Amino acid sequence: MTDQRQTALDYAHQHKTDFLQTLQELVALPSVSTDEQHNLDMQRTAEWVATHLKQLGIVNVRIMPTEGHPVVYGEWSELPDKPVVLIYGHYDVQPVDPIELWRTGPFTPTIVGENLYGRGVSDMKGQVMATLNALEAIAHAGTFPVNLKFLIEGEEEIGSPSLGKFIEENKDLLKSDMCLNTDAGLIGKDFPTITFGLRGLAYFELRVYGPDHDLHSGLAGGVVHNPAQALAELIAAMHDQNGRIMLPDFYDSVRVLTKEERDDFARLPTTDDDYLDQMGVKELWGESEYSASERIGARPTLEINGMNSGFTGKGQKTVLPAWAMAKISCRLVPDQDPKVVFEQLQRFLTEKAPKTIRWELEKLSGAPASITDLDQPGVKAIAAALYSVWGVRPFYRREGGSIPVVSQMQTILKIESVLTGFGLPDDNLHAPNEKLHLPTWYRGIDTLIHFFLNI
Amino acid sequence: MTDQRQTALDYAHQHKTDFLQTLQELVALPSVSTDEQHNLDMQRTAEWVATHLKQLGIVNVRIMPTEGHPVVYGEWSELPDKPVVLIYGHYDVQPVDPIELWRTGPFTPTIVGENLYGRGVSDMKGQVMATLNALEAIAHAGTFPVNLKFLIEGEEEIGSPSLGKFIEENKDLLKSDMCLNTDAGLIGKDFPTITFGLRGLAYFELRVYGPDHDLHSGLAGGVVHNPAQALAELIAAMHDQNGRIMLPDFYDSVRVLTKEERDDFARLPTTDDDYLDQMGVKELWGESEYSASERIGARPTLEINGMNSGFTGKGQKTVLPAWAMAKISCRLVPDQDPKVVFEQLQRFLTEKAPKTIRWELEKLSGAPASITDLDQPGVKAIAAALYSVWGVRPFYRREGGSIPVVSQMQTILKIESVLTGFGLPDDNLHAPNEKLHLPTWYRGIDTLIHFFLNI
Repeated sequence: MTDQRQTALDYAHQHKTDFLQTLQELVALPSVSTDEQHNLDMQRTAEWVATHLKQLGIVNVRIMPTEGHPVVYGEWSELPDKPVVLIYGHYDVQPVDPIELWRTGPFTPTIVGENLYGRGVSDMKGQVMATLNALEAIAHAGTFPVNLKFLIEGEEEIGSPSLGKFIEENKDLLKSDMCLNTDAGLIGKDFPTITFGLRGLAYFELRVYGPDHDLHSGLAGGVVHNPAQALAELIAAMHDQNGRIMLPDFYDSVRVLTKEERDDFARLPTTDDDYLDQMGVKELWGESEYSASERIGARPTLEINGMNSGFTGKGQKTVLPAWAMAKISCRLVPDQDPKVVFEQLQRFLTEKAPKTIRWELEKLSGAPASITDLDQPGVKAIAAALYSVWGVRPFYRREGGSIPVVSQMQTILKIESVLTGFGLPDDNLHAPNEKLHLPTWYRGIDTLIHFFLNI
Repeated sequence: MTDQRQTALDYAHQHKTDFLQTLQELVALPSVSTDEQHNLDMQRTAEWVATHLKQLGIVNVRIMPTEGHPVVYGEWSELPDKPVVLIYGHYDVQPVDPIELWRTGPFTPTIVGENLYGRGVSDMKGQVMATLNALEAIAHAGTFPVNLKFLIEGEEEIGSPSLGKFIEENKDLLKSDMCLNTDAGLIGKDFPTITFGLRGLAYFELRVYGPDHDLHSGLAGGVVHNPAQALAELIAAMHDQNGRIMLPDFYDSVRVLTKEERDDFARLPTTDDDYLDQMGVKELWGESEYSASERIGARPTLEINGMNSGFTGKGQKTVLPAWAMAKISCRLVPDQDPKVVFEQLQRFLTEKAPKTIRWELEKLSGAPASITDLDQPGVKAIAAALYSVWGVRPFYRREGGSIPVVSQMQTILKIESVLTGFGLPDDNLHAPNEKLHLPTWYRGIDTLIHFFLNI
């Protein structure tokens, strides 16, 4: 082990208390991005992060405006022959409702046993600080081994509405060789995890129109096709009985899992029973020829996110609704194209919708799935780092969700993301009593020290 | 023609202007039953009606409290050997929204051409006044030929929530031989109409439960049965492709239409094309072996009155909803029993619902269909009256809607209702610019003079 590495690790181990106190300081700032009342807190938090970056020796630190909350930028680029690592993070947090379910103040970070409780401790102020702590330890033991850029945004928890434009407009400034994104967690505390696949997303709104205004169900029932019923009939036809999606040619571009990939899925510690517990249902559903992990990680879905029609209040109203609406989204896998999926849904509707109703399909968003090349230097560096700290080969996970910034990095900056993180599945993300498991967090700091020095 | 009849008709013809002015006075009272702000107007309107009854020579006139708006009661019973006619009506009106679409003030009754415009002119202040005008004309020409009771309620437009209890508690007071209900309209101005059949109603709320809270559609999509989808699948299975309802044994108790009944339906002037226009759709739907009139009048339905699940706001939210809900109602025909239909829907769900979800079915209300015996004296009296005025044999209609008071009269007071009225299909009931066709209204007054003298 190099001197710098050991010195940095020693420094990190000696400064655990300092690191924890600094994290508590950051978590105490109520940076709730969705609530305008916290706009000043957002500004203060951005300034806190900027100050901290400067203290690390990062230069050109700036709080850059966007159409929404600002981005904290910074860089260090004294090694022209070395790669540039873009460190992505977000300083905003989820709202705290329902506040009455919190056992400690969400912005009064509190240690209970091995955990630190507070809003954003795991998602992702703790992850941001793990990276900065690792860099502090490395800086103490020498110079940074790679060039660094920072993009710490303030709108992740509201869907990063300004980020795409910001990256586009600052393409040159952000030019890098890879992105480190610690916003993906671990499968479990004993399972070091690299997330290498994310599903894409295509989101639609389908509206079915019948009569031009609500009719009296007694006077029209039996002669007018009820739009709510027509919508239900269309939705029901979107899957077969085995959970297969019935849009025309939908599976044509779905990449088939290799034997090797299926072996990797089988190696994941999460069983179908674990999913039953996690989801709070009695029975799983979906394509039975795939395991639950495969279905979530590597198979496309079509979900009804919402549905609305007619009278939905208390009691009864005998209305035959004029229209019905569904929010429908598809999780996409390689090599599906969101535009093509939109066309497939349009074709499905053209073929299946009866003449008794009129329909409109609107595309609300679309992003393809992403798969990171496991042979790229960043992934190799984090894999070795995780092995050094945990002593086991990391688990490679394909996650069901979508992280738009990962596709933005790919499409705009043409760089891959190294997706890891040190949050745990039971950290209560987006829920009351969010926590961070401190022993895992300290391991995370060690891992990141190794990561930067491995590149 | 008897002297009294001709004298009464002459009186009615001479007092057209007075009748119209009195109606305008009543329509100017904004008796909107659904809006608490109009509670004082409701009281004033009840008093107006009571005063008018007293002026006609009706005795024991009382404004009787209910749990909601009061009922105006009155009676005249000086002919112990003659039948008692219970005159049903309502003095409340629908709300006026959307107010901006009215061309004249809803409570500023305005004559334009042959029509009087204003909220409640047709539904049903005009009908109530037609009856009172006829009785005024008869009284001028002699004494009333039958005994009279009045039940003029103030909650019809909010579903008559207090009426059942009121009738039950005043069974003796309301004891009568028949009910005259002029709340059913004409098929068209040249088509005198007797409504002899009304469909019943069974109203349900179905809730489908999946996970115990909303899940992230990326992390759960593909392994959890989406409750919105499951609900859609159940709803879709409730009809076959020909519009037939698939609840088990649903049609077992549906009375088969006789050749004679189908001939009567075929004689109705309303064609399937008329329904296309009325409903504002391009194509009709439903059981093709029955005409639209038959489907509305004599066939049961299952309608989705409302549907709700997950995220229904603007934009997108990637949620897998925890539950989904539908309001479902069946229009019933003889001899269907609402309790049995509830059991049939329960059996359908027990058989069809997958184990991946949990469901709950709640019964919100139930009333059987009603068919009036065409041979009863009241129907014969109104049929002859309509023939005298229009010169054509009246049309016998079975209507798709349900009038709960008709079943209440049958089940509690054991009397049949004579269902007629002088509103037209284009009167904009429950909509802006409600109107009353005055020439038809005057014919209605003549008809009711004949009716009372025919009994």
